[in-house]
Amino acid sequence: MLADGLNGACERARRLQVTDSDFALHPRLEADSVYLCRWTLCQVRLINDARYPWLMLVPEQPNITEPFELTAGDQAQLWRESMVLAAWMKGYFRADKMNVAALGNVVPQLHVHHVARVVNDSAWPGPVWGVGEAEPYEPERLTALCQTLTPLLRTLAV
Amino acid sequence: MLADGLNGACERARRLQVTDSDFALHPRLEADSVYLCRWTLCQVRLINDARYPWLMLVPEQPNITEPFELTAGDQAQLWRESMVLAAWMKGYFRADKMNVAALGNVVPQLHVHHVARVVNDSAWPGPVWGVGEAEPYEPERLTALCQTLTPLLRTLAV
Repeated sequence: MLADGLNGACERARRLQVTDSDFALHPRLEADSVYLCRWTLCQVRLINDARYPWLMLVPEQPNITEPFELTAGDQAQLWRESMVLAAWMKGYFRADKMNVAALGNVVPQLHVHHVARVVNDSAWPGPVWGVGEAEPYEPERLTALCQTLTPLLRTLAV
Repeated sequence: MLADGLNGACERARRLQVTDSDFALHPRLEADSVYLCRWTLCQVRLINDARYPWLMLVPEQPNITEPFELTAGDQAQLWRESMVLAAWMKGYFRADKMNVAALGNVVPQLHVHHVARVVNDSAWPGPVWGVGEAEPYEPERLTALCQTLTPLLRTLAV
């Protein structure tokens, strides 16, 4: 446990050093989503598409395309964050099924999708990617949603 | 480390007990894929669709739909196995991008897709799910592929 604590502290220190200087969000991810909060490794962001509750984790690490390019510690952290997020979304959004995916065919910067699916959503039972056009939230709705989600997600930080 | 070793031994013993009696592969997964080998938690299976190199991890745990329903230890093991598999596939199949996804909208039993994508494959840059029809391998090709992949995957077991 002590070793874990020290490793964790070193990892966080290293991450802060790297993040401050080298990480930059891909412009396409920036355009398609809204920042909600920061967890240990990742930004938690809301995809601006009212068709589905859809959150995204983006590790704040530069030059990473595949999750296995992260250090072993960061890989474990990514999937811990992913599992906490997916479990919470399933309950909060009353999803019938969570879809968790690292694709990146269009935007190479590593990002992991978390989509709360329900049986009668517009793409069910197919995947949501490449189906129809995104339907952005009304600005007031987007603001309200972010104000609701951000404090809830902060309490879940892992 | 000692605690990890003991926990690991207990986990393996528990898993063997549960697996032998209660796990049964979903008939649709059985029909669509071929068994290659067993890793610590998962069966590694080849999807019988010659359009893409496409492997699947199926945790041999009964009554699991979402990855976060696994124990914390099994979640960590699942993603370790997933990352080893994805990293190996990217090199072996010379993929431009790996797609890793837990969807399960059609087959609820937890299974994690690993698809080696190349820029000129038939679905690029879209996802592979719900696009066209599977093209099963010729039987001789399928047999040869399994005979090639199985020993390679056994050496990677994590």
